[in-house]
Amino acid sequence: MVLALQRYFVPVTNWKTDVVYITGDDVHHISRVMRLQDGDQIICNHPEGKAATCEIISLTKDSVQATIIEWLNESVELPIDVTIAQGLPKSDKLDYVLQKGTELGAAAFIPFKAERSVVVWDAKKMEKKLNRYTKIVKEASEQSHRTKIPQIMPVLTVAGLIEEAANYDVLLFAYEEEAKREDHQSFGTILNKLRKDQRILVCIGPEGGFSQGEVNQLKENKFLPVRLGPRILRTETAPLYVLASISYHFEELRWV
Amino acid sequence: MVLALQRYFVPVTNWKTDVVYITGDDVHHISRVMRLQDGDQIICNHPEGKAATCEIISLTKDSVQATIIEWLNESVELPIDVTIAQGLPKSDKLDYVLQKGTELGAAAFIPFKAERSVVVWDAKKMEKKLNRYTKIVKEASEQSHRTKIPQIMPVLTVAGLIEEAANYDVLLFAYEEEAKREDHQSFGTILNKLRKDQRILVCIGPEGGFSQGEVNQLKENKFLPVRLGPRILRTETAPLYVLASISYHFEELRWV
Repeated sequence: MVLALQRYFVPVTNWKTDVVYITGDDVHHISRVMRLQDGDQIICNHPEGKAATCEIISLTKDSVQATIIEWLNESVELPIDVTIAQGLPKSDKLDYVLQKGTELGAAAFIPFKAERSVVVWDAKKMEKKLNRYTKIVKEASEQSHRTKIPQIMPVLTVAGLIEEAANYDVLLFAYEEEAKREDHQSFGTILNKLRKDQRILVCIGPEGGFSQGEVNQLKENKFLPVRLGPRILRTETAPLYVLASISYHFEELRWV
Repeated sequence: MVLALQRYFVPVTNWKTDVVYITGDDVHHISRVMRLQDGDQIICNHPEGKAATCEIISLTKDSVQATIIEWLNESVELPIDVTIAQGLPKSDKLDYVLQKGTELGAAAFIPFKAERSVVVWDAKKMEKKLNRYTKIVKEASEQSHRTKIPQIMPVLTVAGLIEEAANYDVLLFAYEEEAKREDHQSFGTILNKLRKDQRILVCIGPEGGFSQGEVNQLKENKFLPVRLGPRILRTETAPLYVLASISYHFEELRWV
């Protein structure tokens, strides 16, 4: 929503001392879509999360050369590392979660097969789709001016998800029923305890939510149930509520 | 995401002392889609925001009769009355804002013609689309178990929007540039000052955002600029961030 220099993610190998080489689809985007020329400026994102303003010094059919003018000192990444584990939803809802979740600052996405996931899904199918998914998160990262592209992990089972949980400090799952219990911790209480360097894994059930078996499994493995407001959210809306709330709490609330 | 009784919005005129009459599309939904029968229970929403558990006592091709078993005592509506003014976006993005915005608790939507709105739009076109829009917010209200259906207002100009502003306590517009200024109030600071009975109007620019002229106009008329996190959000994502943050702040943060 603000007019700014176009951004491109450039692989490590294409960064030289003071020059950046852009290749692949981005060349077409620079010359044909944006119609940029020698002397025009762009922002190049380094995979390590740094970004630099660069000036185009040469354009050919398959590569663009730009000189680094200055390294930017920005912090547009969420101070909390949030991974969204999404129960495989129907139709193209996963595309949508990847695009919006990237805009809202997710660090990674883990699609998982839940009991109530109706889509048939296997490693092969994921492989096929991975190219599109990678393109979606790359473009959403550029559009939202992020300096990191979220990771998309292979499809897991709930058991696999529980193994993966060992890599996180805080484990949550969306489960509004829980909110009715006395000993329930609100999402706000949980975020208040979170420290800025921590990693959080948030699991969202598919259409129909988690089965009772899955709920028990998650609870037994230290996943805390959270309510995302008193209204029932669709499976593709829940991760956006989680990410927007975390951004609001740590980036806009500024109560400390 | 929780299995619960199906909800139907029933116009005032169809509520009798202890019986409710359901007519129109919902009859088909009850008998054919949900395959409900005599003795099955549903929740009927009264336009005033009340809801009751009802038991079906008769089904015909064009009407369903149900007795009121008990009035529910629920509060699933946002404690703040939030109206989203959406700069007319491209393609079907408005459908999307209406559906997700309803799930997230919006009280009303005002589409408006911004300088950078590329879609051609007139009262006629709106009239045509209004049926679909009304259906979207009704179904999203039912699905998210809301007790009120958000209002969809006619398309306004920015001037019209500024007139409309007289009906609200707090006026905001999404404008990340502003966040760079020293005297800027964060979204959190603004929500901290908000009282639970107040009405808030939040304006979101179309693709390309607000023009400088519109920004000045809005500021001169007491609209406060807010940043929605440091990342650049698409026009259809911004209202979801606003609503999720307000829900989080007033329904889940519980810091008082």
